[in-house]
Amino acid sequence: MRRDLFTEDHEAFRELARDFVEKEVVPDYPLWEKGGRMPREVFQKMGSLGMLGMAIPEEYGGGGEPDYRYNVVLQEEAARALVTLSTVRTQLEVILPYFLHYANAEQRERWFPGLAAGTLLTAIAMTEPGTGSDLAGMRTTAVRDGDHFVVNGAKTFITGGMQADLVVVVARTSTDPDNRRRGLTLLVVEDGMDGFTRGRELEKMGCKVQDTAELSFVDVRVPAANVLGQVDEAFGYLGHNLPQERLTVAVGSVAQARSAIAAAIDYTQNRKVFGASVSSFQNTKFELAACSTEVEAAQAMLDRAVALHVEGELSGPDAARVKLFCTEMQQRVVDRCLQLFGGYGYMMEYPIARLYTDARVARIYAGTSEVMKVIIAKSLGL
Amino acid sequence: MRRDLFTEDHEAFRELARDFVEKEVVPDYPLWEKGGRMPREVFQKMGSLGMLGMAIPEEYGGGGEPDYRYNVVLQEEAARALVTLSTVRTQLEVILPYFLHYANAEQRERWFPGLAAGTLLTAIAMTEPGTGSDLAGMRTTAVRDGDHFVVNGAKTFITGGMQADLVVVVARTSTDPDNRRRGLTLLVVEDGMDGFTRGRELEKMGCKVQDTAELSFVDVRVPAANVLGQVDEAFGYLGHNLPQERLTVAVGSVAQARSAIAAAIDYTQNRKVFGASVSSFQNTKFELAACSTEVEAAQAMLDRAVALHVEGELSGPDAARVKLFCTEMQQRVVDRCLQLFGGYGYMMEYPIARLYTDARVARIYAGTSEVMKVIIAKSLGL
Amino acid sequence: MRRDLFTEDHEAFRELARDFVEKEVVPDYPLWEKGGRMPREVFQKMGSLGMLGMAIPEEYGGGGEPDYRYNVVLQEEAARALVTLSTVRTQLEVILPYFLHYANAEQRERWFPGLAAGTLLTAIAMTEPGTGSDLAGMRTTAVRDGDHFVVNGAKTFITGGMQADLVVVVARTSTDPDNRRRGLTLLVVEDGMDGFTRGRELEKMGCKVQDTAELSFVDVRVPAANVLGQVDEAFGYLGHNLPQERLTVAVGSVAQARSAIAAAIDYTQNRKVFGASVSSFQNTKFELAACSTEVEAAQAMLDRAVALHVEGELSGPDAARVKLFCTEMQQRVVDRCLQLFGGYGYMMEYPIARLYTDARVARIYAGTSEVMKVIIAKSLGL
Amino acid sequence: MRRDLFTEDHEAFRELARDFVEKEVVPDYPLWEKGGRMPREVFQKMGSLGMLGMAIPEEYGGGGEPDYRYNVVLQEEAARALVTLSTVRTQLEVILPYFLHYANAEQRERWFPGLAAGTLLTAIAMTEPGTGSDLAGMRTTAVRDGDHFVVNGAKTFITGGMQADLVVVVARTSTDPDNRRRGLTLLVVEDGMDGFTRGRELEKMGCKVQDTAELSFVDVRVPAANVLGQVDEAFGYLGHNLPQERLTVAVGSVAQARSAIAAAIDYTQNRKVFGASVSSFQNTKFELAACSTEVEAAQAMLDRAVALHVEGELSGPDAARVKLFCTEMQQRVVDRCLQLFGGYGYMMEYPIARLYTDARVARIYAGTSEVMKVIIAKSLGL
Repeated sequence: MRRDLFTEDHEAFRELARDFVEKEVVPDYPLWEKGGRMPREVFQKMGSLGMLGMAIPEEYGGGGEPDYRYNVVLQEEAARALVTLSTVRTQLEVILPYFLHYANAEQRERWFPGLAAGTLLTAIAMTEPGTGSDLAGMRTTAVRDGDHFVVNGAKTFITGGMQADLVVVVARTSTDPDNRRRGLTLLVVEDGMDGFTRGRELEKMGCKVQDTAELSFVDVRVPAANVLGQVDEAFGYLGHNLPQERLTVAVGSVAQARSAIAAAIDYTQNRKVFGASVSSFQNTKFELAACSTEVEAAQAMLDRAVALHVEGELSGPDAARVKLFCTEMQQRVVDRCLQLFGGYGYMMEYPIARLYTDARVARIYAGTSEVMKVIIAKSLGL
Repeated sequence: MRRDLFTEDHEAFRELARDFVEKEVVPDYPLWEKGGRMPREVFQKMGSLGMLGMAIPEEYGGGGEPDYRYNVVLQEEAARALVTLSTVRTQLEVILPYFLHYANAEQRERWFPGLAAGTLLTAIAMTEPGTGSDLAGMRTTAVRDGDHFVVNGAKTFITGGMQADLVVVVARTSTDPDNRRRGLTLLVVEDGMDGFTRGRELEKMGCKVQDTAELSFVDVRVPAANVLGQVDEAFGYLGHNLPQERLTVAVGSVAQARSAIAAAIDYTQNRKVFGASVSSFQNTKFELAACSTEVEAAQAMLDRAVALHVEGELSGPDAARVKLFCTEMQQRVVDRCLQLFGGYGYMMEYPIARLYTDARVARIYAGTSEVMKVIIAKSLGL
Repeated sequence: MRRDLFTEDHEAFRELARDFVEKEVVPDYPLWEKGGRMPREVFQKMGSLGMLGMAIPEEYGGGGEPDYRYNVVLQEEAARALVTLSTVRTQLEVILPYFLHYANAEQRERWFPGLAAGTLLTAIAMTEPGTGSDLAGMRTTAVRDGDHFVVNGAKTFITGGMQADLVVVVARTSTDPDNRRRGLTLLVVEDGMDGFTRGRELEKMGCKVQDTAELSFVDVRVPAANVLGQVDEAFGYLGHNLPQERLTVAVGSVAQARSAIAAAIDYTQNRKVFGASVSSFQNTKFELAACSTEVEAAQAMLDRAVALHVEGELSGPDAARVKLFCTEMQQRVVDRCLQLFGGYGYMMEYPIARLYTDARVARIYAGTSEVMKVIIAKSLGL
Repeated sequence: MRRDLFTEDHEAFRELARDFVEKEVVPDYPLWEKGGRMPREVFQKMGSLGMLGMAIPEEYGGGGEPDYRYNVVLQEEAARALVTLSTVRTQLEVILPYFLHYANAEQRERWFPGLAAGTLLTAIAMTEPGTGSDLAGMRTTAVRDGDHFVVNGAKTFITGGMQADLVVVVARTSTDPDNRRRGLTLLVVEDGMDGFTRGRELEKMGCKVQDTAELSFVDVRVPAANVLGQVDEAFGYLGHNLPQERLTVAVGSVAQARSAIAAAIDYTQNRKVFGASVSSFQNTKFELAACSTEVEAAQAMLDRAVALHVEGELSGPDAARVKLFCTEMQQRVVDRCLQLFGGYGYMMEYPIARLYTDARVARIYAGTSEVMKVIIAKSLGL
């Protein structure tokens, strides 16, 4: 169905992105899968093409266009080519907002150029072993000591943790028994700081071109100048960015589901069984028609949410609805498309197999489907 | 999620419609269900309030605003009050377009005032026993005899057939072996014409406030002046109106699903089991959250389609996608909501039971889900 | 798949049942649907054929074979002919067990002959307006007064309540604050007792050939000789019969789903669209294959449960699993079969429409699917 | 639910199998996953314990008990410990039957001892690139040349192909235009024969402890003494073994789904979020109750099929139903269980992630769900 989300500027950016993906990502992607990450040079190439700094002010080498739709375009073009852009999504949509909103003048000077250029890679360290998404139960601490904070704790499930130059660590700086939402602070831990070590890389079912790490902090002395925003106020910051974090998952889900359909159409038209192309069976037609229908529903819902988000009007419950619907849809659609590949669908050399294993995390991260339902139910007065 | 489909004019019309439904429909609705139809006076009341003639030119007593969104508002407000407006939907969205597009000056003069006033009720007689939706297999004939056509045949599943003053009959006027799409004609058969009889009223599972009839035509002499549009050209006319016919089903599906959720929230908040309200159970919350999510996806898709339709840009395959998704969604949502009512959900005095039996036809009429998939698959090149 | 549940005796009974259903039930069934019940003569006919008293000792005119599989056969044969046997199922499988287990010698003398002959029809009055399945919250009282109990209260959703000669009323006879499971008693209220009135008949979505009533008890003096079992001990009696009550629902669900498939095969083989039979479409084949598969899974599970039940070994959680699976399966299967009928599936003259509206209650009564899940989860240690 | 499939002998074998799996498989399983296969010594250990030769006559070192239920026990015990036994399942249930049924006296002498001892590993080479399951389209040829056959062709998706000592190759030996089912022959190609090479190992989504290979045959001279059964008659042999091949997949599906539930119960009881164990949420309880219900339905259906199979009475369509139901069930259940693990469910160190990726092939191999539906539909007369 016709979309009306994008302007000519977005479409021009789309051309750029498409070209980049085809030339710089697709050819080496199988290698990156083996290696578990995208090489730093590729981030820098993206930086030099202006793809990482669209939202960063021009004075720091960015594009000065904080328009969420460029992120949408980027994800769509990657999905279109049946690849992902590794941790770029996390960097641009989950982490960069903290820098953009909370970095002071000195920090902007220090970090924005590298973020725009793709020379500074980032990660955010929130989850801890055993506490999951319960921020209030967080046990990593940052204790003031002169003009430093001394950080101690362990983090897990950190996307991009192995490659990150800057790790935004969420730590407890104080405890207020009357307000469990106070006392958390964001501190930027830098690669090489004493006591900061990266543990093992976790082996995931999919999402192979991005690392997921365990990080350890033992008496890491972080300069107070590395605090992002106000001390004790991070709880609110984290909550504020959640709708976008969920929206970005949905963007990927819809784009990848769409891609799965295209791949399945292509495969079934060319694959013959018993003398007929697989696409000639009514079951194939009906399955793909149903998938196409689901994707269009999800796309319309998503585009509505993106338009609201661009206006700053996307509510938490609506973001939850969009994430819930689009990720569940992705699972159903990718599964049905894979089935049409028969045995080839189980072979990792066919991108549909990767789409399938990649998809499974979408219903889990950035808040599980169950957490989404809790949020939505509250908004219904239940 | 925020919608941006309606202007102030539509919202003003919404007030009018809501008020009308509450005062003139809701109180007597149970009676109409027993009787199997909405009384003629109510049609006339709607006519006098300008609700039937929005799309009819002002010179014939209409509103002169052929804007599909008024139809949307009307259905939404009926659904909101857990009722339907009987055959009004069919009249406005399925039949009126033929009059608006194909009536000549004399016919407009003759029929438009009555259509706007609610004194002329209509039906369209397409389906025949045994042929279903296969127009090319149609066996009702209209043979030219001077300035009349002599119509013979039988029709079934005719919505509003018992009450109709004007029946638009699709009949075969010629046979072109090279072009099976030629040779059908629309003729307006009027109440009282010799040889036109109404057979039995079919008992349906739901949709009780509208009759569904079998009609019989034996040597009915219809004046040539009652032909709508060109002789032999009806195949194209029928195809042209299908997207709107499907869209209107989807409009009802989404509105009724939304209504089912509201009813279930209300019921579960007030119903206590084992000392707690049903709404306090996590299962209740999750079910309703899932339903709300599905409705919002459908609404976004539907609104996108309505916007396209208002611009004259809604394609057949996209209309098929919207119908498929919205009607299947309605079924799932209404079923889950009903379940939350326990035993009361099975009692016809609770509107949720009526919503359930009404819903079942949506996946069937105006083209089954399977027919939708055929259309969608073709558009995918399959 | 081959079943090994039945002996030759059961198969002989099956012949009898099949013959009876075809000759005595099928022809007048549409009339009974209008009237909302099966005539008393038919119950008596069944009684005279020995179909109501299989489990009743021979000295009272019964068959002396308390073998649950005869009930299974009866339901299967009714479903096979696309009908139901009205309240016979409730009488034999839900109510009769109370008489068989708890009636004393005098009561057996008094009631068993009539129960076997089909001259005494029964109902059980458990549910009250507002309390649902929460027995502990029951408000109907029975106060001892000499050799009578004076019963006051209101009951609702009483299957067969309008026709019943004997109503087994669950009433509170005492309150033990330390044991909420004590204090309930079964009393047999007889037709004609002063103060016992039948209220309105509830209009249900389906199950039209059995009445569902509201009953009222105002100072009804019930002889102490009409107490079934021990005073204050009914809570345990009710719990003890629940597995069978749930099993019987599952028996009907599987049999009716199977019947829906047979009807759909028959319909689609004879129905032509666009020159081909509907059964020739791959979608039709795949839908029916999927339905057949589900029915066979359910049948195997059910037969395993029936075999255990015959040995007295069916646990509550297993009965819950069987009810949950078979009723949810029934819904899915009947819905898919109905869809294959197109518009005819929505017409009540086609039995598939009745199967559909009948099916909806199966996931609700005798404990909703949600209640089943609570029971099952407990058995998993959750 | 209580099962009655096994005798004391089977249960004794179960003890043996359980012990073996715990001691010899579980500890090294993660290593085998990396290596892509189970070491030959482990096969030999199984052989020495009598676990590979149960069905082989005693004179060749086997157990002389061709009872399919031992295979069931073996799979169940592996699944119980959250592992698989690599290609043992294929060897015992898919390949061994050809040897047992068609090997002549000399061949039995030559191969049975090694098969029983676990020193001869096997594979069957049926599928070819591009032809999938269309046996009639097979292009590998075996041309008679004196007392040899010269084999040429390529095979793909060969389970165990890298490790196999004996490869049963399906090749075309003649073409009968009137009978496309004639002309295929089984030839045993041995490791080391000239012209037989193993190509690359295919990377699969799951099932990591068994290799899947491409095999190539260039002028391989296979002694006529290595023909299994009659020349030209393999089509029938292959068809004859299909029910068992499908049954064995279903056995694994049910056992693994059951195991997933146990793992999820264990995890959710120990995992705390927001101060409560995950198992205390109603959603968790309901999800696991639903899963448990599905598994019990599948188990009953499967056990019925196994009992029939032991009697030699399992039909092709019933085997298809069982495979279809059990594998689709497995997918649903494992997916729901995984979801309860949150982020941990996506980490390969949790067996649930492996169960998930392993499960995806079950709906595909040994005939896809779609092929099953074709077979079932035919049996319904469609």
